[in-house]
Amino acid sequence: MLRVAIIGASGYTGVELARILCNHPEFELTAATSRQYAGKPLSEVFPNLLGKTDILCENLSVDELCKRADLFFAAVPHKTAMDLVPQLLREGKKVVDLSADYRLRDVATYEEWYQEHSSPEFIKEAVYGLPELYREQIKQARLIANPGCYPTSIVLGIAPLLKEGIIDPATIIVDAKSGTTGAGRAASVSSLFCEVHDGFKAYKVGGTHRHLPEIEQELSVLNKNSVTISFTPHLLPIARGILSTTYADLTSNLSTEDVQKLYTNMYDAEPFVRLVPEGTFPATQHVRGSNFCDIGFAIDKRTDRIIIISAIDNIVKGAAGQAIHNMNLMCGIDESTGLEGAPFFP
Amino acid sequence: MLRVAIIGASGYTGVELARILCNHPEFELTAATSRQYAGKPLSEVFPNLLGKTDILCENLSVDELCKRADLFFAAVPHKTAMDLVPQLLREGKKVVDLSADYRLRDVATYEEWYQEHSSPEFIKEAVYGLPELYREQIKQARLIANPGCYPTSIVLGIAPLLKEGIIDPATIIVDAKSGTTGAGRAASVSSLFCEVHDGFKAYKVGGTHRHLPEIEQELSVLNKNSVTISFTPHLLPIARGILSTTYADLTSNLSTEDVQKLYTNMYDAEPFVRLVPEGTFPATQHVRGSNFCDIGFAIDKRTDRIIIISAIDNIVKGAAGQAIHNMNLMCGIDESTGLEGAPFFP
Amino acid sequence: MLRVAIIGASGYTGVELARILCNHPEFELTAATSRQYAGKPLSEVFPNLLGKTDILCENLSVDELCKRADLFFAAVPHKTAMDLVPQLLREGKKVVDLSADYRLRDVATYEEWYQEHSSPEFIKEAVYGLPELYREQIKQARLIANPGCYPTSIVLGIAPLLKEGIIDPATIIVDAKSGTTGAGRAASVSSLFCEVHDGFKAYKVGGTHRHLPEIEQELSVLNKNSVTISFTPHLLPIARGILSTTYADLTSNLSTEDVQKLYTNMYDAEPFVRLVPEGTFPATQHVRGSNFCDIGFAIDKRTDRIIIISAIDNIVKGAAGQAIHNMNLMCGIDESTGLEGAPFFP
Amino acid sequence: MLRVAIIGASGYTGVELARILCNHPEFELTAATSRQYAGKPLSEVFPNLLGKTDILCENLSVDELCKRADLFFAAVPHKTAMDLVPQLLREGKKVVDLSADYRLRDVATYEEWYQEHSSPEFIKEAVYGLPELYREQIKQARLIANPGCYPTSIVLGIAPLLKEGIIDPATIIVDAKSGTTGAGRAASVSSLFCEVHDGFKAYKVGGTHRHLPEIEQELSVLNKNSVTISFTPHLLPIARGILSTTYADLTSNLSTEDVQKLYTNMYDAEPFVRLVPEGTFPATQHVRGSNFCDIGFAIDKRTDRIIIISAIDNIVKGAAGQAIHNMNLMCGIDESTGLEGAPFFP
Repeated sequence: MLRVAIIGASGYTGVELARILCNHPEFELTAATSRQYAGKPLSEVFPNLLGKTDILCENLSVDELCKRADLFFAAVPHKTAMDLVPQLLREGKKVVDLSADYRLRDVATYEEWYQEHSSPEFIKEAVYGLPELYREQIKQARLIANPGCYPTSIVLGIAPLLKEGIIDPATIIVDAKSGTTGAGRAASVSSLFCEVHDGFKAYKVGGTHRHLPEIEQELSVLNKNSVTISFTPHLLPIARGILSTTYADLTSNLSTEDVQKLYTNMYDAEPFVRLVPEGTFPATQHVRGSNFCDIGFAIDKRTDRIIIISAIDNIVKGAAGQAIHNMNLMCGIDESTGLEGAPFFP
Repeated sequence: MLRVAIIGASGYTGVELARILCNHPEFELTAATSRQYAGKPLSEVFPNLLGKTDILCENLSVDELCKRADLFFAAVPHKTAMDLVPQLLREGKKVVDLSADYRLRDVATYEEWYQEHSSPEFIKEAVYGLPELYREQIKQARLIANPGCYPTSIVLGIAPLLKEGIIDPATIIVDAKSGTTGAGRAASVSSLFCEVHDGFKAYKVGGTHRHLPEIEQELSVLNKNSVTISFTPHLLPIARGILSTTYADLTSNLSTEDVQKLYTNMYDAEPFVRLVPEGTFPATQHVRGSNFCDIGFAIDKRTDRIIIISAIDNIVKGAAGQAIHNMNLMCGIDESTGLEGAPFFP
Repeated sequence: MLRVAIIGASGYTGVELARILCNHPEFELTAATSRQYAGKPLSEVFPNLLGKTDILCENLSVDELCKRADLFFAAVPHKTAMDLVPQLLREGKKVVDLSADYRLRDVATYEEWYQEHSSPEFIKEAVYGLPELYREQIKQARLIANPGCYPTSIVLGIAPLLKEGIIDPATIIVDAKSGTTGAGRAASVSSLFCEVHDGFKAYKVGGTHRHLPEIEQELSVLNKNSVTISFTPHLLPIARGILSTTYADLTSNLSTEDVQKLYTNMYDAEPFVRLVPEGTFPATQHVRGSNFCDIGFAIDKRTDRIIIISAIDNIVKGAAGQAIHNMNLMCGIDESTGLEGAPFFP
Repeated sequence: MLRVAIIGASGYTGVELARILCNHPEFELTAATSRQYAGKPLSEVFPNLLGKTDILCENLSVDELCKRADLFFAAVPHKTAMDLVPQLLREGKKVVDLSADYRLRDVATYEEWYQEHSSPEFIKEAVYGLPELYREQIKQARLIANPGCYPTSIVLGIAPLLKEGIIDPATIIVDAKSGTTGAGRAASVSSLFCEVHDGFKAYKVGGTHRHLPEIEQELSVLNKNSVTISFTPHLLPIARGILSTTYADLTSNLSTEDVQKLYTNMYDAEPFVRLVPEGTFPATQHVRGSNFCDIGFAIDKRTDRIIIISAIDNIVKGAAGQAIHNMNLMCGIDESTGLEGAPFFP
């Protein structure tokens, strides 16, 4: 068994990592940190884990952490992450960082959207942890920048189209909707049940969400040329799930079958991407609790646009599940290990 | 008191009409039809109305209906409506039809998207019941085609922009999300609690929703030229509410203040349109239970696009409330009568 | 118009008071206090009120408040209330206090369940604001202790049975379920959307909820003898609504009709109590947004127990609506004023 | 791999059985019946299963079924079950019947609450499939009557107390609340999203729910004497989960520790019963998606009553999961196989 630690175990990503690790046959959870809940069993913070793990929340220094585990999931906010990760790497540890700190390859872009970067020297070696695009690099990496939830759903949704050059990148518009786990577990009025329940709203309208540069970075790689998009996030009254609806002008007269083939070519061997049957479309409730990204599309002949729908569980494929997937790859074990469960419906 | 009948009282639009009429000082509900619940008090079908109305559900012929009321709300499905409405008009009644049967001015378009029209001669005199655009005609009308819920939110949201010609109509993309009351009260697996709850999906993707020709008709009028748009509806796990996110390329370099002025000019005197403060955006939970349409927007300088967010309660402003508003106008009484209630939050 | 102030306008009770007052023909909202949001329009804090009120949130001393209004709703937490109310009364104001500070007639009991009381001399003159039980006293009062939400639903539900002595008070068990507005608008992890949504739990199990002495006080009055009950509150994943299920042993062999008569006798003339038809039972969604208390019951011949179901909207009949009802009575205006709206369904 | 069939695969219990079987290392799903969806892949009916199973829905006779599998889960309604099960048994198959048809040991009671029984001769050999009470018999059985969802939560919750005789059986009152999956997947108005969402109600009030005789049967066994209880079910606006709140008078003066010991003695070795830490109480969201039954309790010294809270996921421990547990036992494989997953939160 490989020894694994979760740094920042008391958030929704933390508990989901712990849930998956409870049944992972190769990884053993040997440390879980939380300043707020230090001294308490993790199963007291998250009673769903009762009987599944005895691990205690602890307030550990990086030094102590290094003695306790070899593999690390950093599930702390950006800024906090970049203060921890370098030391872990220097001690020879493998790290999947779930924050944004090593996702943007351009330091200036990072500093424009976030803040000063304290360890830019590690950005270069960090691999963007989207296995469908970077599997081989991930296998060799010691630092993974685990993708954001919105970027995961959006990049996977349109990668085959951009790669093949069949859409006009300047026309890409992404209307995305996220469940409330995306807002984290911090106590705030805007995330209260009574504020979110039975309602729906947009936020960060007008191109101001921090996932935007990350999405554009990956789309630009696929497009082999800089891409600028419109991206509007919305808040759904559900716990888990992101559904992204992406619009783009088609540049050639392709049939549904032609496009289907592009998707099949790219994703057929992928364990966690499902192309839904023609004429049907993904729904967040059909990926709930799983590491799947479901993708469907339609061509609108009236406007010569393609509309792509992609759905993930934001705390599995959009966070904890993808992190485990990355760690599996880094450790050379079967990449689906611990992630085989079918989605929960209803 | 004017005598009012609801034809088709057992759906969600029917109960909402009844709810508003219970406290309307000028209208008296004198008949309510329902084949399925004939003989039962409406308050047994909808216990929220207990003590507010004694009206019985009845299975009445149009002849009988004509003796019982002078003003009619037809809250029956399309096709059924056009078989009833002509006779009501011939008897000199005023009718607000909440179905789609008289909304499309072009019979051929109607027949393409719905079915053969049995009374096309009445289409011409029907007035499209969006008071913000057709107030004067509504006052003179005896037949109102009450707008669809999606069209109401979308047309109001971008009317000022199209009218002033500041967006490129060919680039309009509408990503709309509706609460489940929009699916009606018919028993169907896809509307079951367990299918909708804690989930989110798109439907009628690719330009196939029947509200599309209606939206395009009204946008074309505003644009003084034919408009073709992309429109993708989604199903929200909420009861009431539609939020539409509309994207369009700006054709001139306008500031936020400039655009704000266009909205203010058009809507300042409107009792049921609220422009939300700059930097904030509408939410369905802030219009819940009211006849308001809330509108907000942002200009994305990175892409030179404008993003407009508009929200309504789909069974009030998108159906029953707007119908009452129209009937108030037709009857020459204060147009806000019965619709003054503030939205419910939370 | 009578000048009305809301002290503590930024909670869920505050916004609901404001919503009702917006359309109240006799009361004018002339002041609204909030330390946190001082300087902001109330409609910025609660965008549902946009266009319905221009009132600003202010941080006002009691002296200033006294100049600004004559009628006061104190919607602040217990302890804070008792520090404000005496001064308002000394200035000749009428006050409806929505906190617990003047509900318990026995100071010792108050101090056992809450904390030291700073103005016990006003407890005696405070009238418990349940109009169905204390209408005449309320009309004469200048200080109303507005009942708790749980007590309102429970006391109304069994009052006729206790009064007539047909149940054994020692066997009363109340299993109550409340919507999440009951937890208030303070930012706390346990009230986050993701903690409450799609879940259900009990809390304060074993007779430890602070509403218990209040319920027992009122039941004891009705019983003309001290009553001790079991009471278990639960948290529902809904915003508004309390449903209480009460069990008690019948002491005489009564038919359903006999019991129905007891309820009718007591509540027939009440504007806000509805006895639901025999064989049907209340639901929170049928009282949503209204000031109604719905009551139904069944007799279980197998166990000789009666089961009473009572439902209210906890922030209307359980707080803001009942407070307005009380103020109407205190001011000698029609008691239903501003509260006539039918419940919202769905 | 053992060959397993699901009879009645298109309901919520069916899809949950399929979900669990997808990852079960010893069972292989070889047939799934559905009249309504015959010919369609099960993953088209339930897109969550896409890529997890290729099984088709078929309309198979019992003869055909017998050729296709050796182990059977009958997930059809009562009445339909008893017409199928005898033939399966005669062919030497093992059957877990998830309907009520073989749960009641007394035919007369069955016929009073349901209808005439067509195969009463098999009632005697059927074992009530609550492993915590009947593990040894289950191992030997060929027909399991899988318990109802309410009975599972209730019987497990109070079994230790009744067995030890520390509560007065005549005072047992159960107030139970179920998620909407309990109503099944049939299209009906009362299960529509808009009817259930944001609401709460009681149903079958007064001792009329069909699970009552089943609960009383098992409690009577534990009590070694006939028990009559009060039982009121409620409908929760959640998909999965039952929480039962049970009240009973204590017959001796026990401490919390004493009672804790009774639970520990009975359940300590049980893989699927979790006693929650003292002072905390179960919540449906903490067992979601798992086969756990969580139990907590409090002693109310004011009334000398004990209040027990028990929670399960009604379609796992209350249906599909318990059925798999029983089949594991019948087949002599590790009883937890396929059921090890931790609950999902949030």
